[in-house]
Amino acid sequence: MWRTISLALALATGEKPAAPEPTPEEAVRRVLNDQVAAWNKGDLEGFMMGYWNSPDLSFSSGKERTRGWKATLERYVKKYRSDGAEMGKLTFSELEVDVLDPNAVLVRGRWQLKRSKDEPGGLFTLIVKRLPEGWRIVHDHTSG
Amino acid sequence: MWRTISLALALATGEKPAAPEPTPEEAVRRVLNDQVAAWNKGDLEGFMMGYWNSPDLSFSSGKERTRGWKATLERYVKKYRSDGAEMGKLTFSELEVDVLDPNAVLVRGRWQLKRSKDEPGGLFTLIVKRLPEGWRIVHDHTSG
Repeated sequence: MWRTISLALALATGEKPAAPEPTPEEAVRRVLNDQVAAWNKGDLEGFMMGYWNSPDLSFSSGKERTRGWKATLERYVKKYRSDGAEMGKLTFSELEVDVLDPNAVLVRGRWQLKRSKDEPGGLFTLIVKRLPEGWRIVHDHTSG
Repeated sequence: MWRTISLALALATGEKPAAPEPTPEEAVRRVLNDQVAAWNKGDLEGFMMGYWNSPDLSFSSGKERTRGWKATLERYVKKYRSDGAEMGKLTFSELEVDVLDPNAVLVRGRWQLKRSKDEPGGLFTLIVKRLPEGWRIVHDHTSG
């Protein structure tokens, strides 16, 4: 409704209508799409842009908790960029986005990597929050 | 402030003050404590009381997504009550409770089982929501 009024006003006054703000679901899907695109260009730093750049970012996998953006990047570097490691082609599927609050979204989904020698995959649970810098993953629980 | 006024009014009028409503964090910790107590009595149905009794409950573990309260109970029965299986003694530790919304809470923590033959353990991420029936886990991602 508000969008309709804004648009009508903009048209009436000859102003260019502002792009409507994406919904939380749209914004979060964009973060994930950008992550996949970055990964598939071999751009690990670009992929990491989706995560909250904070010592409080948390990443759970198996029995291991990683704390902080830097430690999470180091984990990815070790796992996917050390000798003989390969980033491969990433896809996300079975995405379910549940808006818990105007500023907090739960995402459940499946990740799959295609690499020359193996095809690891599994599930993830993300909490994505709207922060001053944009929507960022503040917690990631991954299993596979 | 409101609690103070309510208490003062109750005292002034001679009414018995109502127990203050627990905070979301207190309510969620109570759900988890009740789960642990039930588990350690071998009461799987009591343990399952913490979960949303709905076909939409979701439970992620490894590569496997389980959907629905009944399927989640069946998974636990198969894993912990089949021939030779043992429930053991459960503890939760490293609990972090993050209130995302007055009606939605994120819990991160570690689970540990002590059994006669092994001591499995790992991490969990829970989304707990305030529902008409009380606070219930609506999503559980477990790894170990």
